[in-house]
Amino acid sequence: MKATYEIISQRGLEGLVIQDITEEADVGYGSFYNHFQSKDAIVAAVIDASRKFSGGLHEHIAGLASDRAEAFAMSLRMCLHLSRADRTWGWFLLRTALSGGELRSGIGEDLQRAINACLKEGLFKYDDSDMAYEIVFGLLLFGTLKLVSADLPEDYPDKLVRTALKNLGLADEKINSALEKPLPDLNLMPFLDAA
Amino acid sequence: MKATYEIISQRGLEGLVIQDITEEADVGYGSFYNHFQSKDAIVAAVIDASRKFSGGLHEHIAGLASDRAEAFAMSLRMCLHLSRADRTWGWFLLRTALSGGELRSGIGEDLQRAINACLKEGLFKYDDSDMAYEIVFGLLLFGTLKLVSADLPEDYPDKLVRTALKNLGLADEKINSALEKPLPDLNLMPFLDAA
Repeated sequence: MKATYEIISQRGLEGLVIQDITEEADVGYGSFYNHFQSKDAIVAAVIDASRKFSGGLHEHIAGLASDRAEAFAMSLRMCLHLSRADRTWGWFLLRTALSGGELRSGIGEDLQRAINACLKEGLFKYDDSDMAYEIVFGLLLFGTLKLVSADLPEDYPDKLVRTALKNLGLADEKINSALEKPLPDLNLMPFLDAA
Repeated sequence: MKATYEIISQRGLEGLVIQDITEEADVGYGSFYNHFQSKDAIVAAVIDASRKFSGGLHEHIAGLASDRAEAFAMSLRMCLHLSRADRTWGWFLLRTALSGGELRSGIGEDLQRAINACLKEGLFKYDDSDMAYEIVFGLLLFGTLKLVSADLPEDYPDKLVRTALKNLGLADEKINSALEKPLPDLNLMPFLDAA
């Protein structure tokens, strides 16, 4: 699974074959079938594991935040800081986002759901709902691409998040407190290294 | 070159080998070397051709626009409308943007240069220069991803561009006129089909 994760991070899902995985993992081709029935099965397992990993972190963060908007802000910050700290993870997110695979729609739906919940509670206020979502997701996507492509200052992720929150209409004092809140230790559990 | 373009569009640059290209083009492996010295040479030729294609369209548009800001707006609209009309082209842009290859830095530099020129002339006005660029590039990246992944309404590209221009601080009446200006016929010359 780790080999599959690393290949997806490097080259994406498209054109991936079982032989790529067994070569990267340095095991025999046939041994693959002791663990998975197909390439699609191992890819689904890796994507599922990555979503559980993210989900666990977001849940942990939700427990530290004082409201939904702060949780949303901290989750965005964490996403970007993680990609800055671990480029393999950042590239994995980008490449799966471009695959049309489950992860993308998963992240998109989670993000949309979190935004809608904050709107309902009156924490976010904006006129043009479609485009605020486009701005936030665009900042996340482009910000991740920049963070995995170049060495950017440590405050870059939080600058992006401030812009995203402004566009969602979160009050300034709430933005400031959400950006000051300490994040959990991101190096605690690198994805699939703990497995 | 067309086969290479289509493979990049489908799977990206990473892991591409000459055999993929000759199989897609349905020619013998050895015949490749009658035309190109290496895989990198054909990839560079395709990316170069795509930049010339884009450059030609942007120049044509600049001739139709009444000022730099309008030219910028029409170019953004054209980028997005092209990806909507021709998903192969849209995927090609996305996948090369994620390759760390020349095209990305090319587009990024062109965009930054165009924005800076409009700022200098006082057409764009914004406080936080870094983040307006991030918003515009994020909208372009995420908008393109949405346009190649789903059937979206014909007015979606222009909605994205309106949001981008607002964030750049372009005056409302200038935004409206830039969005009303007719674009050149985008189906006139599909990339590499004319070759």
